[in-house]
Amino acid sequence: MYTVLAGGVGAARFLQGFLNTVDPSEVTIIVNTGDDEEFYGLHVSPDLDIVMYTLAGIVDQKKGWGIYRDTFLCMEVLHRYGEETWFKLGDMDLATHVLRTELLDENVTLSEVTRKLCHELGIRSRIIPMSNNKVSTMVRIGSGFIKFQEYFVKRATSDDVNKVIFKGIANAKPAPDVVDSIMDSKGIIVAPSNPIVSIGTILGVRGVRKALRDTKARKVAISPIVGGNAIKGPADRLMRGLGMEPSAYGVAALYRDFLDWMVIDEIDVALKGRIEGLGMNVGITDTIMRNQRKKENLARFILDIFGRG
Amino acid sequence: MYTVLAGGVGAARFLQGFLNTVDPSEVTIIVNTGDDEEFYGLHVSPDLDIVMYTLAGIVDQKKGWGIYRDTFLCMEVLHRYGEETWFKLGDMDLATHVLRTELLDENVTLSEVTRKLCHELGIRSRIIPMSNNKVSTMVRIGSGFIKFQEYFVKRATSDDVNKVIFKGIANAKPAPDVVDSIMDSKGIIVAPSNPIVSIGTILGVRGVRKALRDTKARKVAISPIVGGNAIKGPADRLMRGLGMEPSAYGVAALYRDFLDWMVIDEIDVALKGRIEGLGMNVGITDTIMRNQRKKENLARFILDIFGRG
Repeated sequence: MYTVLAGGVGAARFLQGFLNTVDPSEVTIIVNTGDDEEFYGLHVSPDLDIVMYTLAGIVDQKKGWGIYRDTFLCMEVLHRYGEETWFKLGDMDLATHVLRTELLDENVTLSEVTRKLCHELGIRSRIIPMSNNKVSTMVRIGSGFIKFQEYFVKRATSDDVNKVIFKGIANAKPAPDVVDSIMDSKGIIVAPSNPIVSIGTILGVRGVRKALRDTKARKVAISPIVGGNAIKGPADRLMRGLGMEPSAYGVAALYRDFLDWMVIDEIDVALKGRIEGLGMNVGITDTIMRNQRKKENLARFILDIFGRG
Repeated sequence: MYTVLAGGVGAARFLQGFLNTVDPSEVTIIVNTGDDEEFYGLHVSPDLDIVMYTLAGIVDQKKGWGIYRDTFLCMEVLHRYGEETWFKLGDMDLATHVLRTELLDENVTLSEVTRKLCHELGIRSRIIPMSNNKVSTMVRIGSGFIKFQEYFVKRATSDDVNKVIFKGIANAKPAPDVVDSIMDSKGIIVAPSNPIVSIGTILGVRGVRKALRDTKARKVAISPIVGGNAIKGPADRLMRGLGMEPSAYGVAALYRDFLDWMVIDEIDVALKGRIEGLGMNVGITDTIMRNQRKKENLARFILDIFGRG
């Protein structure tokens, strides 16, 4: 049994290799929901959807989100109706949001909605939201806070962020199975996702950090920062803006209270000693997942770490 | 100023001729909302949409509903998710329902939503729902009631109906401008729509029948029943099931308390005397609107009635 802590695209790429290397039904994926947002009255869970569509084999790999070969006719008409349409929902993709919203309105939990969608999509792994309670990631730009999706999509991460908060996190309970799957796993993988606004959100949910410290599972993280830059997204700039070192070392420092192994890219070999100084082991390999072979190589590297006595 | 009482397809066809014959900005259309329904958590107003799309020039004329050249990708995915998808919403069409639902959830009235949508679609006539309160047309089949859309779309009007009720009608207030437009018009046209479940619903809204009796406007109806058969839809069978005569006479009888003129098809000339016996005038013309020329001919025939001293 393995548990993966996941954000969106980076985690999805890792899972494409990992789930081809282990039995998918033995994997639980705990997904960030801090950037869930309502658009046009519909509940959108970007990270859940990216992971779900990836595992279902229907993701638009080029964009990294949405469904392959989707169209955007509904968006075009919403635009004609004068609506802001910077957050694009494809016509096929809409079915997910429409159904999710309908079920949530009927007081079905996000966990149960996700389980149903995954079942219908034939996904064999277990995908669970970090919490069924609303958590809203907000970033501060200058002196004002804006919602994460506004920063991330509408403003295309062009702003300098000096603070990040997770609204509602103090009252958010971990979703069912979040803590249990951490406690019962043989290995836990922190995916190469944004350590602040993806993994950081999950770690902020009550009981998650404690479970990670208490579990007997071996805990391995893959750095999303390679050579001082985020492979994708604004992680490096976010870390810098918050006064952190934008490096694999900076990421490792965020996980130092529970992490056993930090996997870094070959290019970052010079950081090995400093990371070890945080009290963890360091694995060094090629972490850039350019193709399916490289994804599976990385997966096997991680499995090898779990396999060591 | 003219006011048209309208259902869906029959009314929309008439309006295609009428609004090419008079100044569209002088026309108010009061539309049945008794067959509004929630599908997939979205508020769908079938008759409002048919009229709106028709006036915007984007209706799928062949189907009679929806938007021309729309696709149904969202429906296909909803079907994959195991949802019942007998009520088809196109991908472009979805924008209307998504936005309407969002606005209604923010306590914007259906009137205001409709005005906004019409404005964005460049519609110059005024389209208003009969009421902003929920009215649900239910039909009794055997001993049980089902919702109108289930009878109409899912079961394709294959059942014998022995009773029709409008749930909520006793508490439904006419929408703003409904009564005023009836009182202030020069001419009122009851479109060739279903006299039970389209026009009958509008007439059931508090104050509407009284306004129709009290107004100084001349009131003209076009029979949707020609030669004993409904031009489209189940009006004839519904009337028979409710013990009414399925004919232009039967329709006229339903409007006898307020109607000045009943316009019937040439084929029904034999009904003239009986309809006059109800205390109204009878206009006889070709009412089958096969093409745009015939639609405009019918419109001019009606305008001629209004023009008479």
